[in-house]
Amino acid sequence: MKPPITVLINGEAQDRVSVQDRGFQFGDGVFETLAVSAGKPLLWERHLQRLFEGCTRLHIDPPAERVLLSEAERLCVHAQRAVLKLVVTRGSSERGYAPQDDGTPTRVLTLRPWPPFPEKAAQAGVAVCLCRTRISRNPQLAGIKHLNRLEQVLARAEWQKEFAEGLMSDDSGRLIEGTASNLFVVSQGTLLTPDLSESGVAGVMRAVVLEYAQAASLPYKITGITRSQLDTAEEIFLSNSLIGIWPVRRVESRVYEPGEVTRRVQRGTREYYCLEEAD
Amino acid sequence: MKPPITVLINGEAQDRVSVQDRGFQFGDGVFETLAVSAGKPLLWERHLQRLFEGCTRLHIDPPAERVLLSEAERLCVHAQRAVLKLVVTRGSSERGYAPQDDGTPTRVLTLRPWPPFPEKAAQAGVAVCLCRTRISRNPQLAGIKHLNRLEQVLARAEWQKEFAEGLMSDDSGRLIEGTASNLFVVSQGTLLTPDLSESGVAGVMRAVVLEYAQAASLPYKITGITRSQLDTAEEIFLSNSLIGIWPVRRVESRVYEPGEVTRRVQRGTREYYCLEEAD
Repeated sequence: MKPPITVLINGEAQDRVSVQDRGFQFGDGVFETLAVSAGKPLLWERHLQRLFEGCTRLHIDPPAERVLLSEAERLCVHAQRAVLKLVVTRGSSERGYAPQDDGTPTRVLTLRPWPPFPEKAAQAGVAVCLCRTRISRNPQLAGIKHLNRLEQVLARAEWQKEFAEGLMSDDSGRLIEGTASNLFVVSQGTLLTPDLSESGVAGVMRAVVLEYAQAASLPYKITGITRSQLDTAEEIFLSNSLIGIWPVRRVESRVYEPGEVTRRVQRGTREYYCLEEAD
Repeated sequence: MKPPITVLINGEAQDRVSVQDRGFQFGDGVFETLAVSAGKPLLWERHLQRLFEGCTRLHIDPPAERVLLSEAERLCVHAQRAVLKLVVTRGSSERGYAPQDDGTPTRVLTLRPWPPFPEKAAQAGVAVCLCRTRISRNPQLAGIKHLNRLEQVLARAEWQKEFAEGLMSDDSGRLIEGTASNLFVVSQGTLLTPDLSESGVAGVMRAVVLEYAQAASLPYKITGITRSQLDTAEEIFLSNSLIGIWPVRRVESRVYEPGEVTRRVQRGTREYYCLEEAD
């Protein structure tokens, strides 16, 4: 019996791309990371919407959604719980930064095992650090999940297993996000999340949380968040499409008590991610 | 007869890398672009030194220089005039930003035809534009020729053939560099080049120019350069390892006369690059 296919490149079962691909040459593309549950990628429409928005902002002609969906289904059909990564690059070109007019985008879909997240993180919460690596500001790239991720790589290398995530700030000291998650802070009863107009990735789960807050009449605000607001916060949590919602029980040495707003958000959004109970 | 080898990946004649390579996943690596003349890559030691510095700053374990040199010679032996690109990435990993402790870096050497640069650019000078795309600031990445090049890609897409290069500024409006070259401005007889401690790539040819200025007692200064300094400059030129030195005869609508400092720098550095006369 052949091993199951885990990578499709432009619809072909292969796992290598040309070195001329602009994804490899320049990080010239976008990606999405989706939770897969019982054979289905979760929050598909929202991820595709962000992928397409990223392509539009980078002037990449995106693949048709039906093509991506058919390939995703082909990969995920037997996966009980897994991670699906979609990458779309501007395709190959010979040399130099200038995009070629006739360039055909490359699409890469990869199915991976579910990662070993910390046990009981969603119940007990996680410890996070404050990264020294700064996230740079550029409104033209802000919000997009593009392939230029060196800052996140350097930030993630700042800790080993002692923390579950690290928070990144911009050069003005404002907190922006985790290396692979978005940040929420409860301050005087209001849910705050960083403004991402200059840096960061506008997460799909972040949007789900904000919509829940709106629907549940939970006061919320998208704003700049300083280190001192973090220190005085009542609750902190992280979101992404794989972890769902993780309460933060500690930032460096500052400890936070489990909070009611975080629990409400968890209950209100749990249909959108793989629950720990599924293990 | 087999076609000549133009790509070596970890010493093997092949032209595709794993989609798990962190170069493709995150732009997690560095590169160098060298002029090749009569079978030899030019300024080899300087390019290798910058490649190794980049690896050190990104905590990538670089390949041995003798390995890179032997592979470069293998590719370049029959090339009269060509471009050699070296890429070193952190290698492959399964998922997520965390580098794997046992990751083996990937090295990719590619030989490409000499690009069709504008004719007589070194004599007559070139026209350049001012890019709207900003270059972001991050001292941790500044100076390195890393693989996160989306800003350069977007800037390069702002023009077609009407300009030979575009100048990029940071968010404070300071000029930093061209999309693929470094910037020099002659102002009141002094050679100025932008400070690259927060943004930009510290070019090998830039270093050659600065050393020449030092040796030739040409006054020079590494400093912040504003748009108004550009407007009032006597001469402007660009440098990189392929083009050598290009006088700028026009920035948008502002025209510059051919200048003596530029000519002196061209004469003083011509041994380090492929001359147009070689065509």
